[in-house]
Amino acid sequence: MSLINARIVLASRPTGPVSPHNFRLESVELSPLAEGQVRVRNDYLSLDPYMRGRMNESKSYAASQPLDEVMIGGTVGEVIESRNDHFPVGCQVVGMGGWQQYFTVDAKERGVLQKVDTTHIPLSAYLGPVGMPGVTAWYGLHRIIEPKAGQTIVVSAASGAVGSVVGQLAKAAGCRAVGIAGGPDKCSYVTGELGFDACIDYREHPDARSLSQALKAACPQGIDGHFENVGGVILDAVLSRANAFSRVALCGMIAGYDGQPIPLAAPQLLLVNRMRVEGFIVSEHMEVWPQALKELGGLVATGRLKYRETIAQGLSAAPEAFIGLLKGQNFGKQLVKLHP
Amino acid sequence: MSLINARIVLASRPTGPVSPHNFRLESVELSPLAEGQVRVRNDYLSLDPYMRGRMNESKSYAASQPLDEVMIGGTVGEVIESRNDHFPVGCQVVGMGGWQQYFTVDAKERGVLQKVDTTHIPLSAYLGPVGMPGVTAWYGLHRIIEPKAGQTIVVSAASGAVGSVVGQLAKAAGCRAVGIAGGPDKCSYVTGELGFDACIDYREHPDARSLSQALKAACPQGIDGHFENVGGVILDAVLSRANAFSRVALCGMIAGYDGQPIPLAAPQLLLVNRMRVEGFIVSEHMEVWPQALKELGGLVATGRLKYRETIAQGLSAAPEAFIGLLKGQNFGKQLVKLHP
Repeated sequence: MSLINARIVLASRPTGPVSPHNFRLESVELSPLAEGQVRVRNDYLSLDPYMRGRMNESKSYAASQPLDEVMIGGTVGEVIESRNDHFPVGCQVVGMGGWQQYFTVDAKERGVLQKVDTTHIPLSAYLGPVGMPGVTAWYGLHRIIEPKAGQTIVVSAASGAVGSVVGQLAKAAGCRAVGIAGGPDKCSYVTGELGFDACIDYREHPDARSLSQALKAACPQGIDGHFENVGGVILDAVLSRANAFSRVALCGMIAGYDGQPIPLAAPQLLLVNRMRVEGFIVSEHMEVWPQALKELGGLVATGRLKYRETIAQGLSAAPEAFIGLLKGQNFGKQLVKLHP
Repeated sequence: MSLINARIVLASRPTGPVSPHNFRLESVELSPLAEGQVRVRNDYLSLDPYMRGRMNESKSYAASQPLDEVMIGGTVGEVIESRNDHFPVGCQVVGMGGWQQYFTVDAKERGVLQKVDTTHIPLSAYLGPVGMPGVTAWYGLHRIIEPKAGQTIVVSAASGAVGSVVGQLAKAAGCRAVGIAGGPDKCSYVTGELGFDACIDYREHPDARSLSQALKAACPQGIDGHFENVGGVILDAVLSRANAFSRVALCGMIAGYDGQPIPLAAPQLLLVNRMRVEGFIVSEHMEVWPQALKELGGLVATGRLKYRETIAQGLSAAPEAFIGLLKGQNFGKQLVKLHP
């Protein structure tokens, strides 16, 4: 009896905000494995803002997500069938398994699957602080912002999978960490549980001027480094408080993903303040992953790096969960649990 | 009999475009020298866009030019009186002598005066390719853009004191050099005399879309590095043709100096193309000056680095010459000859 795989494909490209109609749930019968292949039961799917860019036809970070193919996505799970000695049945793995219950892959291809050890680190953490979001935070902070003790580091989407790690690493580096997040619950979490020095609720500040005043209060010494996950008025406000020689790591500009680009109001500040702004995608910096994952894994295993997850139940919940993520409705890392 | 010094002070701060009324010409009697001082006859005054920023009260690159004091400016000249053994009468020097005929300075202060050798290099070149504009070009190109042979480098204000050096150094590094300049005469000079591969007349392109098309034609492999002296629609157009991992050295944004900031239309391109944008002021990177000046001096002395000067006659011509510079009416390095 062969296995039935439920999967979600991209049915159409969004022309504005993403809608559930852009996705289609399918069931397909899985074929027997070929030599070298393994079959993974995807336990958790990671939902991430970068997926929004892939849904567009236009040039973005990377190749477009093809229509009618399984949506791209990071997954963790367990090998349930194997014709590859390196990945025996029962081992736990992380990979780009996509929005589907089962992932069949030629494990001879280098890097498509990585074994993970869940003795001290929960499986799902390999999609969060000990995975791509964690390394993203690590790279932007340590390789672009390069914080020095005593400096002030700001991060937007501060309660999210990436932002929460940025601020905690900044604190560990002896910096003042200031978050920007949406709503009082997220802000309390950021300053309470995560230990940031301050957190600004952007919903209380409808424009860049108001947000700039709030940043002035939260950053009495100005801003030395900024990790941008949002863009739009947040970036405008941060630039208005940026110190000479400050650095901006551009990781996401989710504010403009759905429509027209949002202009940067005062680019001359980059010159006036001799700033450095750098956009990056962590998958293009594989050389840092071993070091970053080792540090992040150690911090999670010993409880020094905290994180929160929002877990949607079942593959069919993925589209709505993803749309919620783009609106900031998740709290911490957004995952989908793919099996009961 | 004591010497009379003619000088120009800042009379008022501009509220829009700079006007001659923002300046005031004065004559003052010079006092005898104190121990350690020297008196320099300023032969040439350098006019540079950075002076526009200094005329504002608001935060800019550096301290504001104080009202009623001599306008800041680089000068070359000859020591005509000296109470300092290191700078005997007759030696030629470069310094920040300001908009005046004579410069009296305590030469014991380190770095206020530098002796120059005019055996193989004309005196005025120390205000151009072998001075601050040359080092500015060198720093932005070699330390920010870091061009590799075969890459395409674009520079705005390409016939100017800085831009002309950027393109010639880019050619020397094996790159395709593409200039942007105002008018057919400047463009012919840039491609003919200076040896750039192409030059776009921005006056033929009223908006970013049209300029982007012209850049597409001039940069068939896209843009790998951009040296920005102008900003505004030029920067928008360049970003629209920027390659992955391209770099922008922000040196000037003269397009917005007179009024409201000009927004950057599509900042998300910095992320999409994983770009690095960095603003700089060359006076904050004194560590590169010796190496840069040595290279630039060698290139000028051997005729391999070409440059052009526009020379206004007499101190009283300085305000109009400066206003012309801000409008792009100069051709090459704008100087003022301060003595008949």
